[in-house]
Amino acid sequence: MEDQYHLFSFERLHVFALSVFVAMGCPEDQARTAADSLLSADLRGVDSHGVARLSGYIRLWENGRVNARPDIRIIHQTPSTAVVDGDQGLGLVVAPFAMKVAMDKAALAGTGWVSVCNSNHYGIAGYHAMRALDQDMIGISMTNASPLVSPTFSVERLLGTNPIAVAIPAGEEPPFVADLATTTAANGKLEMLQRKHQEAPLGWIQDAKGEVTQDPSATTRGGALLPLGGDREHGSHKGYALGAIVDIFSAILSGANYGPWVPPFVAFLPVASDLPGKGIGHFFGAMRIDAFRPAEDFKRHMDQWIKRFRSAKPVEGQPKVLIPGDPERLISAQRLDQGIPLLASVVEDLKKIEQKFSIKL
Amino acid sequence: MEDQYHLFSFERLHVFALSVFVAMGCPEDQARTAADSLLSADLRGVDSHGVARLSGYIRLWENGRVNARPDIRIIHQTPSTAVVDGDQGLGLVVAPFAMKVAMDKAALAGTGWVSVCNSNHYGIAGYHAMRALDQDMIGISMTNASPLVSPTFSVERLLGTNPIAVAIPAGEEPPFVADLATTTAANGKLEMLQRKHQEAPLGWIQDAKGEVTQDPSATTRGGALLPLGGDREHGSHKGYALGAIVDIFSAILSGANYGPWVPPFVAFLPVASDLPGKGIGHFFGAMRIDAFRPAEDFKRHMDQWIKRFRSAKPVEGQPKVLIPGDPERLISAQRLDQGIPLLASVVEDLKKIEQKFSIKL
Repeated sequence: MEDQYHLFSFERLHVFALSVFVAMGCPEDQARTAADSLLSADLRGVDSHGVARLSGYIRLWENGRVNARPDIRIIHQTPSTAVVDGDQGLGLVVAPFAMKVAMDKAALAGTGWVSVCNSNHYGIAGYHAMRALDQDMIGISMTNASPLVSPTFSVERLLGTNPIAVAIPAGEEPPFVADLATTTAANGKLEMLQRKHQEAPLGWIQDAKGEVTQDPSATTRGGALLPLGGDREHGSHKGYALGAIVDIFSAILSGANYGPWVPPFVAFLPVASDLPGKGIGHFFGAMRIDAFRPAEDFKRHMDQWIKRFRSAKPVEGQPKVLIPGDPERLISAQRLDQGIPLLASVVEDLKKIEQKFSIKL
Repeated sequence: MEDQYHLFSFERLHVFALSVFVAMGCPEDQARTAADSLLSADLRGVDSHGVARLSGYIRLWENGRVNARPDIRIIHQTPSTAVVDGDQGLGLVVAPFAMKVAMDKAALAGTGWVSVCNSNHYGIAGYHAMRALDQDMIGISMTNASPLVSPTFSVERLLGTNPIAVAIPAGEEPPFVADLATTTAANGKLEMLQRKHQEAPLGWIQDAKGEVTQDPSATTRGGALLPLGGDREHGSHKGYALGAIVDIFSAILSGANYGPWVPPFVAFLPVASDLPGKGIGHFFGAMRIDAFRPAEDFKRHMDQWIKRFRSAKPVEGQPKVLIPGDPERLISAQRLDQGIPLLASVVEDLKKIEQKFSIKL
């Protein structure tokens, strides 16, 4: 039952999500933006971050932690930078606003860099970075998140899975789109293993004492996800440093909460009372290609880069070399065509939302 | 014998390196800049990138691949960006020039971003990023390098160890300085194991067929270093993506060589004839803290961040949690005080340079 999937068209889920955001009180244009951001995760195969999270956003709103009609605004700026206060809005709405500011800055000053405070979970990092592509810009997106990750040598959870996304335009080839949690494995993968009662590979998690474990539910009993690298010998101090950089750019540059003070996404966990900042933080960048070089020269070389890597000789018995963004692009095309598969438990969740708001899925 | 160390004072090695660069024909100020950049590696404990490489730079110069009197210049710019052509100069000189441009841009536009072509090896990434610290700026530095790393699933070496360095100012606490190769292990560590005839940990290297090996010399027989993560299950596609981003920012934005076309550091290896760009590439960034927030607010929160992480509960039997930059700062202080230990083979190398240029060490 749990592992059974039901197919829904992108349009159907998009209309449903949009209606739910409107029912929460979001203005129509913001509801549409939120639905676009949210559904991009389902399309790209990041099932943990799409409509499966809709009920989570609703609970945050019910608990007064999400403002459905935020006054999102720039509170400080220079020609190439800005700080945006999200006014406790949905990150799904605040992030596109801030990314637009970064791109507007880049149009004038060559690049734009925006740090965001007072926001909430923004969906998948890659979606926001990709907004820059059709402007012939490189897009960059990162966010901090609820503490689930222990720095190298520690048993305490002090960082989120803090993803970094970088989207780079190409010419004839599809764009390069990297979107990576700075941990060995994203939390969504762990949730999937928990649901299926399967073991995790060694090097993904530690238990409450800091010992390696394959039990994916160890994180619910004081365990932690491990930084990319896994252990010190394999470079976990690098994953830790990358997660820390994301935290600092997203939250200390903007005045949001950082490290262990990042408010949890799940509404039933308490928010600490002595917070150093406001909400969670994001960081966005946009670099106009022709602020460096004519875009056609850049794209010709990107095409050559991509073709060379894609045609690299594979290890015998292993798949072909992929370009970052390849798997997600293939899944997107397939799901737009054939529909988005949702787990039975997610469908149950959506049905409860149907009843709550009297909206037909 | 090979493992015997000899101590030299920082000043003595600095004067020697400076004299060698002058003897190569560098103008005095550029020779001083090059010696500063080079010696920062010895000070910070990155022994593979310091005076141990002096003979390598000399060989590149002898082979006409390093221009000792380069006309380094900005070939394109906007308020927040520039492309610098290094005119085949020493990366040790070109990089400080470009980082200065980034900081000058940041002073006016909030941030500065400089991509560099036609350069050579620039020493350690962290040194250049750290230039920004005393201006109350965040410094960013990356470079591509000779292809030694296979992307996930491939037996071909298409990327360098492509480091990323980020230096972030704090208040009372020392700055946060991350400097990481985007591989499981830096090449310098491998060279050290080769020298000592020791095995490498699993997950650092693969052999020519793409199978895991512990033989550190496998990279000299068609093997490759592995991207951070080690294998696909542990996130090597993330290390590969990070290394690729460094390559693209450093070389495709600037018009330098990228991927497998990056010219080798060692002068005896041939340079391909159909190169797509000029020299190797670097990328630098500078972000003025107060382009986002008052610097004192930022620094107060950085101090809190650093103190919280440093006091995190350690795993039993493991060291305390470190802040990126801690180990290198401690080594620097020790070596400034007690001297820099050089391997006997490195001392031999320096003695040959003494004779070649009639300069006393």
